[in-house]
Amino acid sequence: MYKQNHLENVRVVLSHTTHPGNIGAAARAMKTMGLRHLYLINPRRFPDVQADAMAAGADDVLREAVVCRSIDEALQGVVFTVAMTARLRDISIEVKTPREAMPLLLQQASAHPVALLFGTEMSGLTNEEMGRAQVLVNIPADPDFSSLNLAAAVQVMAYEMNVAAQSYVPCIPETRSAPYEQVEGFFLHLEKTLLEIGFFTTQNPARLMQRLRRLYARARLEQEEINILRGILSVTTEYNGRLKSRYQRENQDVSEH
Amino acid sequence: MYKQNHLENVRVVLSHTTHPGNIGAAARAMKTMGLRHLYLINPRRFPDVQADAMAAGADDVLREAVVCRSIDEALQGVVFTVAMTARLRDISIEVKTPREAMPLLLQQASAHPVALLFGTEMSGLTNEEMGRAQVLVNIPADPDFSSLNLAAAVQVMAYEMNVAAQSYVPCIPETRSAPYEQVEGFFLHLEKTLLEIGFFTTQNPARLMQRLRRLYARARLEQEEINILRGILSVTTEYNGRLKSRYQRENQDVSEH
Repeated sequence: MYKQNHLENVRVVLSHTTHPGNIGAAARAMKTMGLRHLYLINPRRFPDVQADAMAAGADDVLREAVVCRSIDEALQGVVFTVAMTARLRDISIEVKTPREAMPLLLQQASAHPVALLFGTEMSGLTNEEMGRAQVLVNIPADPDFSSLNLAAAVQVMAYEMNVAAQSYVPCIPETRSAPYEQVEGFFLHLEKTLLEIGFFTTQNPARLMQRLRRLYARARLEQEEINILRGILSVTTEYNGRLKSRYQRENQDVSEH
Repeated sequence: MYKQNHLENVRVVLSHTTHPGNIGAAARAMKTMGLRHLYLINPRRFPDVQADAMAAGADDVLREAVVCRSIDEALQGVVFTVAMTARLRDISIEVKTPREAMPLLLQQASAHPVALLFGTEMSGLTNEEMGRAQVLVNIPADPDFSSLNLAAAVQVMAYEMNVAAQSYVPCIPETRSAPYEQVEGFFLHLEKTLLEIGFFTTQNPARLMQRLRRLYARARLEQEEINILRGILSVTTEYNGRLKSRYQRENQDVSEH
């Protein structure tokens, strides 16, 4: 019959939504397809009567919605994030169609929390927000008029997920993906290290970090791999620290002569 | 690149829509997926500022929308109609998923007008309206909360059609389906004939006609077949007429004796 186990691990994250009516309509769209977990990053107005009106029976989804102050809060514990984009940008990580993305998402959702991340009505997600995702998804549309309503985009994704979930044959995930906060911890460590060793002096730090995010998003880091990479970073800093102190000591020696 | 030829033959028909906002949102949903032809059967309010507001750039679709007084007017010239249903009813013709229905629809749409028929927000299509379709489509949803918003349903169907159209390999339709008005003309002729020959005396006429509609919907009548069937009906009536007049003559003869 109707299988809900995978869908239970899916959270729909709406970032900086302007119109509360869209939040309500998104909640309704989710519920029709068996999705229940709504996260809202700094919505302009919530709760709101317009959201309630548009939810039309999905008021339980609204009532249990989690309002967050940051994307870090919304993606806490998530191992796989799909970010929506209306455009095909150059900073893109890996852009798939909804149908292509679903098996990946369901594979992870069989055991861990996953997220569908939607941006604002006017401008979508920021590059920084998209950098937090493993896969970008573009809903194929008429190039002359490609702006789907936010709730309509939620409906299409939830529908695709529901269809895919009903025919999904579970298999063991090939990797044990690290949760969001561990991946972000690694990126912070990496950035700090690259700064310390003076790597950024000749490069644009933001752009370089975007490229590195793309690389590691493709790789879908496991926890153990993050431990190894952070180990390397730690050693690098230590080595750099030893070099620096030796240099200082020698310079001191020189000045003492 | 982007192929629009099939989509040009698709009309979206909304029957007795209550909320003008849904008409606008449906127009936007259509336009994002390359659909342009909107037909409205007796909308409660149209044109309307709420429709304009929700169209958000798809005002050309609203401006060119055709307002009709009956389903016959809306389906004039259409060779293949898909009717939406939220429930799986017993009077159903043939119920498919959106993905199953698209190849059939596109095959016809390569040469002739086809229609996607949506009912009212509260109760969907009437049985009579559904009887005009060749295929019923049910969008798979959570059985506990299956009521998609009207515009959301339009978005899902338009999306599926757009995805299917982009990968569709044209082939010659196996049949030359008759247009809507010829099929309906046949049904009228059939009903009239069955009434004349006294077939309905022991049967529920409406129910019987529904069953006959189901049979012929499955067959997807060609024009020539309709000519043959109507020829049979005409001969039946004539035969019946001859019998009747002979009976009357004989009875007259009897009474004259």
